[in-house]
Amino acid sequence: MKKKLAVTVLGAGSWGTTFAALACRNANVVLWARDGAVAHDIAHAHRNSRYLPGVPLPARLHAETSLAEAVARADVLVLAVPSHGVRGVLEEASAHLRPWVPVISLAKGLEQHTGLRMSELAQELLPGHPVGALSGPNLAHEIMAGKAAASVLAMQDPAILARLQPVLSSGLFRVYTNEDVIGCELGGVLKNVIAIACGMGDGMGAGDNTRAAMITRGLAEITRLGVALGGQPATFAGLAGLGDLVTTCSSPLSRNRHVGEELGRGRALAEILGEMRMVAEGVRSTPVALALAERHGLAVPMIREVARVLEGGSAKRAFRTLLRISAGAEADPG
Amino acid sequence: MKKKLAVTVLGAGSWGTTFAALACRNANVVLWARDGAVAHDIAHAHRNSRYLPGVPLPARLHAETSLAEAVARADVLVLAVPSHGVRGVLEEASAHLRPWVPVISLAKGLEQHTGLRMSELAQELLPGHPVGALSGPNLAHEIMAGKAAASVLAMQDPAILARLQPVLSSGLFRVYTNEDVIGCELGGVLKNVIAIACGMGDGMGAGDNTRAAMITRGLAEITRLGVALGGQPATFAGLAGLGDLVTTCSSPLSRNRHVGEELGRGRALAEILGEMRMVAEGVRSTPVALALAERHGLAVPMIREVARVLEGGSAKRAFRTLLRISAGAEADPG
Repeated sequence: MKKKLAVTVLGAGSWGTTFAALACRNANVVLWARDGAVAHDIAHAHRNSRYLPGVPLPARLHAETSLAEAVARADVLVLAVPSHGVRGVLEEASAHLRPWVPVISLAKGLEQHTGLRMSELAQELLPGHPVGALSGPNLAHEIMAGKAAASVLAMQDPAILARLQPVLSSGLFRVYTNEDVIGCELGGVLKNVIAIACGMGDGMGAGDNTRAAMITRGLAEITRLGVALGGQPATFAGLAGLGDLVTTCSSPLSRNRHVGEELGRGRALAEILGEMRMVAEGVRSTPVALALAERHGLAVPMIREVARVLEGGSAKRAFRTLLRISAGAEADPG
Repeated sequence: MKKKLAVTVLGAGSWGTTFAALACRNANVVLWARDGAVAHDIAHAHRNSRYLPGVPLPARLHAETSLAEAVARADVLVLAVPSHGVRGVLEEASAHLRPWVPVISLAKGLEQHTGLRMSELAQELLPGHPVGALSGPNLAHEIMAGKAAASVLAMQDPAILARLQPVLSSGLFRVYTNEDVIGCELGGVLKNVIAIACGMGDGMGAGDNTRAAMITRGLAEITRLGVALGGQPATFAGLAGLGDLVTTCSSPLSRNRHVGEELGRGRALAEILGEMRMVAEGVRSTPVALALAERHGLAVPMIREVARVLEGGSAKRAFRTLLRISAGAEADPG
């Protein structure tokens, strides 16, 4: 039997904690929390009251507040901090990470000013390390409640994929593989923008037909953009694209959909964000996605309207604008 | 200005009636109802109390009980009877239909013993007429409540598509076009099978992650089957595939999902169907879809498990079987 891998998860938010708890089944897992109180809670009370209240965690899940210690032990490094924190964490981690260790991002955002995907950022800051992403329809609370879920692990190297897939899969958590890192990462990022749009529709009283049409046309739009940026179309039809999009656009647990819903009711963005403890990545990703689309000369009407509403425009007006675009062939924008 | 087209809709169920009401805006519409009471209700009280209760219909929507009269007037013939009734209706219609008149199917099923799509059946019984389908996420009640929806009109001939698209589009009902008739029709048929599977999951208490994974893996499965049968992959990622699938798998209004949900709770099929006034096409389509997959040597684990449960097997066991199949690459079955 092979030696158990040491998996270090950076970031003890709800998804980082959930992922770490799942990985405990087949690996020795260290969860790094910046905040001492959170780390203490995990290590001693076997729970994360701040970000995953009411959920018991495995006793064998270790917590650590020293980034250097946590990173130095890693056979696999997993990034679960919000994307605006990834650069800082990687800069600090780089001195401690052993050679060859693969780096897997769980973050679903782009860097603000550079537009970089998180695995690109990892490649830049940790050159020589194989990088990848894990993405899919994975609401943390449902997984911790023991409900079945599936996700995609994306890396370019099939040998590493083959070694990691059985470690990260466990029982009701099914991990599929895909070699298209770009597509998987962009699926996770761009679906948040469409989720804000769907939430806006819900906030204005739209129905299931409307939501399904927005999901479908939204997926067509983010697929066009994702393919222009180097992703594969099939990836967007998979778990990290369609699958994650469906969950995020439908579930009352989704933060990005929630932001959209409140915007649709006419509330101001600052007020909505002020009430939320956790990050809605889509709010930051939308202008970056729009800028990338413009750089490639692509029409992305839904992303553009979401960007307008996030800048203070009216959701009702955005909706009307989208309905005014005449419907053409399915393959065209709009 | 062009002469208004005469559109005849055969079948006054909830969707046939809704479609006819929409088409009234830009065309002269006759709605054929087999049942005199339904026709009388539509013609005189401007409502369809049996299949679309509580919804006012346009006064200019004509109703007709004579199939011969209704068909003879048509510039466009629309089939909105349940798919097991299409052959009988077309046999009767063929003597009365004027030459060249396009025939558009709204039915989302396959013929039981032949496995034929409805447009194939129309081609067989009405040779020389251009055939097509209109399909998408279109819950009748939501459309009649004035909520936005989108659909796809599929025909091979772009000239006919271009003429019909503006007639069938109206305000909040957006009609896109697609030349892939096979894919659009099969999307509408096969999504019902996956909706039964999702309903089964819901009946057993599955969450949003599970549903999203089933929708995604289900879409991959029906896309593989649909492509083997001659459809285009992009069509399955569109409104008639993904879009319709999302609505049918999520909405409490969906009949096929409802059947699955009750099966998931352990009830018997005959009892469930006995309580329903309207047809759940997926119940009939499942064994036909499975037979088509077997003929093409395709692995379709979800369709196979739904077929087993419809034949009296346990939904819990079906679910366990699906989870036991090991997860591989996203492009593989399972």
